Amino acid sequence: MKKNQNLIKLRVMSLGGLNEIGKNMTVLEYGEDIIVIDCGLGFPDDDMLGIDLVIPDISYLEQNSEKVRGIFLTHGHEDHIGALPYVLRNLDVPVYGTRLTLGIVRNKLEEHGLSSSAVLNTVAAGDKIAVGVFNVEFIHVNHSIADACCLAIKTPMGYVVHSGDFKLDLTPIEGDMMDITRLGEIGKMGVTLLMCESTNVEQPGFTPSERLVGRSFDSIFAKNTDKRIVVATFSSNVHRVQQIINTSARYNRKVAITGRSMLNIVKAAVELGYMSFPKGVLIDINELSRYPKNQTTIITTGSQGEPMSALHRMTFGGHDKISLGREDLVIISAHAIPGNEKLVGNIVNELLRNGVCVFHDSEVEVHVSGHARQEEIKLMHALTKPKYFMPIHGEFKHLVRHKELAISMGENESSIFVMEIGQMLEIDKKGAKINGIVPAGKVLVDGYGVGDIGNIVLRDRKLLSQDGIIIVVATVDINGKYLISGPDVVSRGFVYVRESEELMEESRNICYDALSRCLDNNICDWTQLKNRVRDDLSKYLYAQTKRKPMILPIIMNV
Amino acid sequence: MKKNQNLIKLRVMSLGGLNEIGKNMTVLEYGEDIIVIDCGLGFPDDDMLGIDLVIPDISYLEQNSEKVRGIFLTHGHEDHIGALPYVLRNLDVPVYGTRLTLGIVRNKLEEHGLSSSAVLNTVAAGDKIAVGVFNVEFIHVNHSIADACCLAIKTPMGYVVHSGDFKLDLTPIEGDMMDITRLGEIGKMGVTLLMCESTNVEQPGFTPSERLVGRSFDSIFAKNTDKRIVVATFSSNVHRVQQIINTSARYNRKVAITGRSMLNIVKAAVELGYMSFPKGVLIDINELSRYPKNQTTIITTGSQGEPMSALHRMTFGGHDKISLGREDLVIISAHAIPGNEKLVGNIVNELLRNGVCVFHDSEVEVHVSGHARQEEIKLMHALTKPKYFMPIHGEFKHLVRHKELAISMGENESSIFVMEIGQMLEIDKKGAKINGIVPAGKVLVDGYGVGDIGNIVLRDRKLLSQDGIIIVVATVDINGKYLISGPDVVSRGFVYVRESEELMEESRNICYDALSRCLDNNICDWTQLKNRVRDDLSKYLYAQTKRKPMILPIIMNV
Repeated sequence: MKKNQNLIKLRVMSLGGLNEIGKNMTVLEYGEDIIVIDCGLGFPDDDMLGIDLVIPDISYLEQNSEKVRGIFLTHGHEDHIGALPYVLRNLDVPVYGTRLTLGIVRNKLEEHGLSSSAVLNTVAAGDKIAVGVFNVEFIHVNHSIADACCLAIKTPMGYVVHSGDFKLDLTPIEGDMMDITRLGEIGKMGVTLLMCESTNVEQPGFTPSERLVGRSFDSIFAKNTDKRIVVATFSSNVHRVQQIINTSARYNRKVAITGRSMLNIVKAAVELGYMSFPKGVLIDINELSRYPKNQTTIITTGSQGEPMSALHRMTFGGHDKISLGREDLVIISAHAIPGNEKLVGNIVNELLRNGVCVFHDSEVEVHVSGHARQEEIKLMHALTKPKYFMPIHGEFKHLVRHKELAISMGENESSIFVMEIGQMLEIDKKGAKINGIVPAGKVLVDGYGVGDIGNIVLRDRKLLSQDGIIIVVATVDINGKYLISGPDVVSRGFVYVRESEELMEESRNICYDALSRCLDNNICDWTQLKNRVRDDLSKYLYAQTKRKPMILPIIMNV
Repeated sequence: MKKNQNLIKLRVMSLGGLNEIGKNMTVLEYGEDIIVIDCGLGFPDDDMLGIDLVIPDISYLEQNSEKVRGIFLTHGHEDHIGALPYVLRNLDVPVYGTRLTLGIVRNKLEEHGLSSSAVLNTVAAGDKIAVGVFNVEFIHVNHSIADACCLAIKTPMGYVVHSGDFKLDLTPIEGDMMDITRLGEIGKMGVTLLMCESTNVEQPGFTPSERLVGRSFDSIFAKNTDKRIVVATFSSNVHRVQQIINTSARYNRKVAITGRSMLNIVKAAVELGYMSFPKGVLIDINELSRYPKNQTTIITTGSQGEPMSALHRMTFGGHDKISLGREDLVIISAHAIPGNEKLVGNIVNELLRNGVCVFHDSEVEVHVSGHARQEEIKLMHALTKPKYFMPIHGEFKHLVRHKELAISMGENESSIFVMEIGQMLEIDKKGAKINGIVPAGKVLVDGYGVGDIGNIVLRDRKLLSQDGIIIVVATVDINGKYLISGPDVVSRGFVYVRESEELMEESRNICYDALSRCLDNNICDWTQLKNRVRDDLSKYLYAQTKRKPMILPIIMNV
């Protein structure tokens, strides 16, 4: 038995979050025990047309489901919890997280009709959970959501520290500074492996305190007593929302909330005691008209310019209660996520066009990041002094930059593992090396379909989106070798048919000729018939229009 | 006659370039004379699926074609000349531009088979061209392309100054500093209207000199004598390319060029004397293998991450001559245009993954802008001291920021005109006001089609791209009221059919039932038949998949 145990290695792998932003999921395995850290979703790339979201491939966990002891959540952001409703359907394991994190998870599971079956275990920073050979300790960190933790996991091969998402805030709005003392204690006991996030690793210095944003709010509220103030931010940024509430109260403004996810999170945060309204400050959105505009504040979703969000609707006129104009001031208290710059720009342009005064983070400090910059990342390394290091949560450029940072602090290049999802790091007393690979990848979610959309469907959607589709329908009597009806030519997304009658008529003639020639020559193989129609029509259309619509011949036999 | 003339107003309007980036085109009209400044293209928005490019609506010019005296080009960038091949087809007017500008235009017209018919008149900075009542003076400016000018147009209502795109470079690579003296002289004579670009109006200070980039190149070349160096930049940035050539020569490197537009522009620039290679420095791409890698430089297109560009192909393995690896260093000497950040990021990640050393402008100064920042914009205002001012070339947020800047310099708010494309500014001795509107908008180019793609086609492409299409085909005998063949159900871009046989089979059944019920009940109206099929199938599919594919019933009669 003892000998056997010596042969067991600690295995560490990421099923998401390496060389990509989002869908974070890390797996630790030792012998008969597996634990999972985070269970996040990702957003589709531009070429994943029609896809709603992306989740990790968990085949490895499904194959080893009897080993999986639990999922440990570092905090309540979508890229750390968003895949839970899908994963829990196929994996019946307990979930561990802090109070706010599980509050958000519970809402999410309810929406998916899964709340009754899930086992959610509430923990608090400082708690240690023993599962199998592992002992998982939750350690308080600062982040852009309350109740965030990093994890120190005691394993038979020593401590593994997983940073989660973190920053160091010396003057947090609520609660304590990140517990660097405890991290230092664990560092002194010896950390075998550090996994540390890399989001802001390209940025020098320290991320400013959340309090900076409060000061900006104060100065904007002080100078603009003649305006209604609308603040858009991430609904999950509980401390940011609290600062908006507090500043509003200080300037005698009533606060109304709009946007589905903002309403949900505020409700959960208030119930759980993470947010509070001074008496009489919160009003219903329907009560807004009872107060002078300049004595109200509206807190809203839509800081990323999302087309269906409350801010977008208030801006472009689709909101049933509120429209924005010369008496309004809008603060976009967020940074545009790469890819969303244009969406946010569209909103800013439209607001300015309507005479609204706009503050956003390119000119004033109305947002700070929730992620550690270089100096805070160095602090994490300096506290934990890890034997081995794996940069996580970032594109490749972030991971290599993080590796360079670690080397600059004296860590050994050979002890740093820049990995791909699915790659397995094996650690024993003698050393660590990448050894083997497990299934990993992007599982696409489209409506109720999970993983049923693959490359062929995406390729078709891409084709359809570029030049549309032309359908050629004909009915033939294959025995008599003659056309019974058609060919009819129908198009969608190709040209505006009413203005292209000649082109469509000639297309029909070409299909007719192609079919007739085949039938006259005794060619009655379906594939050949269809190919002939497709080839002739596609050549003609390209010559006429330089476009390549998808051509779909449907030939029916009687 | 004299009295009549007093009634004529100077009309100024933009047909592109206001509240949008690109497709710049400005029109000046006085009595029987019209001149046009620039003739640019724009790139499609994300929701213009399949569209290649966007050009201005020139209906107003076509309706008044007998008045149009000429098109005056400020410089050779696509957003100032790119619509010429389309506009010249419908508008037979002479074009005026500097040597390099027309060199690029000539290439472009040749590609469109239009070179023989166009009248291209070469001018130089300092030249004055009299056309109708107008006298157009070309004035030298600095920009990210050589041979760029702003225009001072003498009109019966006084001078109109159009800035084109400009910056002030005190130490240009070639040629002189922007001719601020001449602008000042014109300012002293009195400027009625200034139209000034707004691209960098949100940025404080001065844009650095192009020479700064040269210094960065020098230090990178000096430190990396063991690597092949690949530099990606805009092909039209002649001075940037010249600096890469000079630095390469200084470090005894041969230079090879790749990328179609880079080859084109280098050829034109060398022929016209805007670029030169020290003897023996330029080699053909096929000769690269004759030299040690670290004694070569490759200048390439693809600085925006464009999927078909040479850099993209060299990075992802689709280039027939070059692939990049550990012996290469890549400099991306450009700033990602909003919307292209992810494309550039993908290239950087892949290069790093292949062991390539990468420099891009987020960390080192390997790029400077070609556009004036706030202090240079103020200089333009201070020199010209305009009576009226119209900010141009920018989204709404840029135009209003520019207005604020002008007000901060003492200009009157009532003399500043933040306008929309198509709006007409009328100026006479008594004053200026926005009066009337002409047709203006986006004309979409898709293949050979110009303007034939409208909202219906785009809406269909969007729909098709989201959930694909389902086609239901059936042949009926409408007299006998029975089905002859089908219904067949065919899908594209919806689900992977082989893994969804049940869904497709049930869909067929639903269509069959819908049709049978109609025929049994004597419903033989085509529209009703189709709607019944569409409704029943769409309900079923949404309930099953939460997706809404386009459903296209095609029912043929025998």
